[in-house]
Amino acid sequence: MADLVQYETASAEVRAVYDDIKRSRGVADVNNFWKALAVHPPTLKRTWESVKEVMGPGILDPVTKEMIYLAVSVTNGCGYCIASHGAAARKAGMTEAMWGEVVAIIGMANETNKLAFGLQVPIDPAFQASAPKS
Amino acid sequence: MADLVQYETASAEVRAVYDDIKRSRGVADVNNFWKALAVHPPTLKRTWESVKEVMGPGILDPVTKEMIYLAVSVTNGCGYCIASHGAAARKAGMTEAMWGEVVAIIGMANETNKLAFGLQVPIDPAFQASAPKS
Amino acid sequence: MADLVQYETASAEVRAVYDDIKRSRGVADVNNFWKALAVHPPTLKRTWESVKEVMGPGILDPVTKEMIYLAVSVTNGCGYCIASHGAAARKAGMTEAMWGEVVAIIGMANETNKLAFGLQVPIDPAFQASAPKS
Amino acid sequence: MADLVQYETASAEVRAVYDDIKRSRGVADVNNFWKALAVHPPTLKRTWESVKEVMGPGILDPVTKEMIYLAVSVTNGCGYCIASHGAAARKAGMTEAMWGEVVAIIGMANETNKLAFGLQVPIDPAFQASAPKS
Amino acid sequence: MADLVQYETASAEVRAVYDDIKRSRGVADVNNFWKALAVHPPTLKRTWESVKEVMGPGILDPVTKEMIYLAVSVTNGCGYCIASHGAAARKAGMTEAMWGEVVAIIGMANETNKLAFGLQVPIDPAFQASAPKS
Amino acid sequence: MADLVQYETASAEVRAVYDDIKRSRGVADVNNFWKALAVHPPTLKRTWESVKEVMGPGILDPVTKEMIYLAVSVTNGCGYCIASHGAAARKAGMTEAMWGEVVAIIGMANETNKLAFGLQVPIDPAFQASAPKS
Repeated sequence: MADLVQYETASAEVRAVYDDIKRSRGVADVNNFWKALAVHPPTLKRTWESVKEVMGPGILDPVTKEMIYLAVSVTNGCGYCIASHGAAARKAGMTEAMWGEVVAIIGMANETNKLAFGLQVPIDPAFQASAPKS
Repeated sequence: MADLVQYETASAEVRAVYDDIKRSRGVADVNNFWKALAVHPPTLKRTWESVKEVMGPGILDPVTKEMIYLAVSVTNGCGYCIASHGAAARKAGMTEAMWGEVVAIIGMANETNKLAFGLQVPIDPAFQASAPKS
Repeated sequence: MADLVQYETASAEVRAVYDDIKRSRGVADVNNFWKALAVHPPTLKRTWESVKEVMGPGILDPVTKEMIYLAVSVTNGCGYCIASHGAAARKAGMTEAMWGEVVAIIGMANETNKLAFGLQVPIDPAFQASAPKS
Repeated sequence: MADLVQYETASAEVRAVYDDIKRSRGVADVNNFWKALAVHPPTLKRTWESVKEVMGPGILDPVTKEMIYLAVSVTNGCGYCIASHGAAARKAGMTEAMWGEVVAIIGMANETNKLAFGLQVPIDPAFQASAPKS
Repeated sequence: MADLVQYETASAEVRAVYDDIKRSRGVADVNNFWKALAVHPPTLKRTWESVKEVMGPGILDPVTKEMIYLAVSVTNGCGYCIASHGAAARKAGMTEAMWGEVVAIIGMANETNKLAFGLQVPIDPAFQASAPKS
Repeated sequence: MADLVQYETASAEVRAVYDDIKRSRGVADVNNFWKALAVHPPTLKRTWESVKEVMGPGILDPVTKEMIYLAVSVTNGCGYCIASHGAAARKAGMTEAMWGEVVAIIGMANETNKLAFGLQVPIDPAFQASAPKS
């Protein structure tokens, strides 16, 4: 099980990241994920800055971003990530009915991905043609 | 490489599925995925009916559904599925800028999923509390 | 792409393994998998001896063993392994109708595995009870 | 952790699926997997009908089907699925000696799949030739 | 949960493997992994002999070998393997600072692997040229 | 297949990243991976900066870092990544004999990871005790 670095005993470098997470998200404390990452401060800082950029304002709305994050996490079977991004998706507006559709798509995609592997389906020329060109 | 069952030589059972796919999607021919699945007609029929239900009208809009499908397919490294659902997502309205955000989220989620595994992060009590109860 | 060590240029150590594979399987030449493994002779020898033991005579019949091998290979998306163990399964008696059922099970299992992850289903007490005890 | 929908509080739509599962399998109650899926009734119904078809009478006998299901579940690391399909396989006749062989094949296939990836082994022309043709 | 075969109740065949593990590693008892594998003695024996060979003296030093083992185990999300090979890596000399770098590389590699899948990047001719030739 | 953004037609933002890659690595042109990522300039910039930091000078030497990267890439079956990081590892000093040991460890770890899943091995108390504490 991970060591968890608490704010009280954290170095100034780690505290600065925790403070930015708390400010950006409007939360009183950071999640265990960040407390575990703090065992390697450069990875904590880089990962937080990357997540902040990727999950920050963009073209896709926050709930769509979180549902895509969830789809990857479920496919990888990451229990922690399903719990944390499930909570984040609900906070961003994912209802239980939406989650029902998300989980159905995840299940179906995993099935058809493996059917395509099993049958070694050759790519249709039309899909190549529809791809953007350089 | 898969055997591909063409319409001309297909059984009545397989043709009925192909006809439904062509009618539902407004296309002149079915993709190689369905032609490969036709080697086992019950699997062809069941898979098509499942995909039609899961990807059909619901709460989530079609482009969101396709982006979630893509996130799973990229995580599984299914080249055929990335090509076919990439084309479907673009047809449903995914722009290159949206795809850029989708691929960034997929990459980031795969990274943090494995960081969470590596550090064996314990689930925060708050995530448990925010889950819906039976 | 792998270097392939051909019999003609192989060391005595590698030739001895190739000879045993050819004799055990009654084939004129070994598959590319073994020619690629030969870049590291101890791994070639150990892997062949392990495969020979695991896939040799036992309680399960050869076609069942090959179908289980295929199920893993399809789930991992290993194109080479699907081709080689698909050929081996057919040689051992897997008909196209059997393959249709195998691929349907693989697809379904991959779907329900991910549904179980997504919903974080708790294990039923009955499954624990039915497990053999030490 | 999943919400589990109990029979007593289930909707008529969900009860109808539960009743069919109980009747088909001759069990007094459904497993947690179905109770968790019931949060999205269309996915519950579709998944049950698919599993019933795929795992129902066919060319392969029930214990072979369950061992293939297990091979996928172990490869994906799905604890719930290993427990539930392990129990189902034992009920269908899998002895501990058979399970020993199954787990050995799963381990070996996962090893050689990754060796084939690592060495990027090119597919032998003979495997292509042995595939069925359209 | 696995049956664990304890030394006291083990067969002579299993005890011989346990004895060799204890002697080779200088430990008083074998880990649960071996006690679980003992339900199938041939798999116990073969796996131990393979691990002993692969992880034994070679060109790479022990701590490097264990960090590579850990990288695979984290990518596969195997909690048991992360715990056991994490302990082995620390015993072989992996400091917390080294583990921080290892986990950072694992996370980054998983991210870029999926980015490469998502973008279906074609292999550069230069990488082909730099591979060793047969 | 990915669009590849060539230097000649790249925006100033993309050129700045390409220039930094070329300078840092002392190469005349950037790999296809970067040219594909350039379809989303913020992801190109962030990924490069992360890779530069993670794979830059640290406690682990460059060849060890590249072998760990390779272990992940082989486990994920990423052909592009195996080619590019295989070339990088060789450039950093990985000999064919070292690669033979690396691939043997990757294969063995993937096998034992799945054996541990299959047998659902409980974690030994000793592994918990040996973990660093917060």
